[in-house]
Amino acid sequence: MTKAAGAARQGTAPRNYPKGERRRAQIIEAAFTAFGQVGYRNASMVQLAAACGVSRAGLLHHFPTKESLLEAVLEQRERQDDAHFFRTGAADRDGLEYFASMIRLVAHNQANPVIVSLFAVLSSEATAADHPARPYFVARYERARGQMQSAIHDLSARGLLRPHVDPSTLAADLISLIDGLQVQWLLSPETIDMPRHLRNVLRTVIGVEVP
Amino acid sequence: MTKAAGAARQGTAPRNYPKGERRRAQIIEAAFTAFGQVGYRNASMVQLAAACGVSRAGLLHHFPTKESLLEAVLEQRERQDDAHFFRTGAADRDGLEYFASMIRLVAHNQANPVIVSLFAVLSSEATAADHPARPYFVARYERARGQMQSAIHDLSARGLLRPHVDPSTLAADLISLIDGLQVQWLLSPETIDMPRHLRNVLRTVIGVEVP
Repeated sequence: MTKAAGAARQGTAPRNYPKGERRRAQIIEAAFTAFGQVGYRNASMVQLAAACGVSRAGLLHHFPTKESLLEAVLEQRERQDDAHFFRTGAADRDGLEYFASMIRLVAHNQANPVIVSLFAVLSSEATAADHPARPYFVARYERARGQMQSAIHDLSARGLLRPHVDPSTLAADLISLIDGLQVQWLLSPETIDMPRHLRNVLRTVIGVEVP
Repeated sequence: MTKAAGAARQGTAPRNYPKGERRRAQIIEAAFTAFGQVGYRNASMVQLAAACGVSRAGLLHHFPTKESLLEAVLEQRERQDDAHFFRTGAADRDGLEYFASMIRLVAHNQANPVIVSLFAVLSSEATAADHPARPYFVARYERARGQMQSAIHDLSARGLLRPHVDPSTLAADLISLIDGLQVQWLLSPETIDMPRHLRNVLRTVIGVEVP
């Protein structure tokens, strides 16, 4: 049941959610393109509004700040990545499938420097105590560590984990590896092959080859 | 021989390098404090000039852009870190001493979130093709990988490296780990202990305990 349908059933006037949601999606799409083309810092809310055919006030109604818009862009990207790379749901139950999906996602990122750069910049900026995206990134990393720990626990239960590996420590380490490789790859793409590095490190902690 | 002395010996009028260098150092010091207090993005060149008692033109003479000033701040920080943590020179020859110094540096960073955050933000920002600090960070990471590779080669030559470890791959991986841990630590300082993570990973690749 959509929110609009819910409101109608409760006898209140149905608000025009679908139109608002379409407009919101349209703004996110335009911002995605703009951030990719001119960078987050250089993108202007005025130009973004013009590109979507909305007034500046209309844009600010949906996204009061440029940070909140970028956050929406990142959240959508994350949902798309999840849907695409972890689509079967098998990654939730099968640690090997989880890491196979992770290698595919990292290989996909290696074809998208603009997105990788945006994520790297914003996650670092967001470490500032007063940054509006800080709660989002705190939650995002907690979730990422939790999901990876579950995958590692599954491998451990199946006897596929090398001895003396602590799942919680390893999850933070592997996420750090992936994040850190992105910066080196963006700066020296000819030197760093991210999926190769990840696969190589996984060989040292997992007893079988990740498919 | 200083540049000024060199100019004098060549019979040209000695330029007033010492005064210019003092002024430059003073600006870097003020910028360091300002970036730490209000953040790089919010620091204003006008306020920085006022804090140093120079005109805006005087500031721009030394640092034409805020980025170039930040680069100077980071370079000085790097020199200070090198002098402090790799001071004996033993780290250049002794791989174990190198990694012991690295753990000390990471522990020191863990007491300095502002600096860690600045480095993380700027290294990510600098991945943009047109960013003024990009060449600095490309060179910085190349140098860091090279130094770490030398340390790993030394361990390998002394039979202290675990089998099947490739020095060049490991150097990029460990630098990625250190960089990536910084972001997670900044976001969740109670969850991540950076020197503990680094020491733990080093145990998996080095056959003896790093002092």
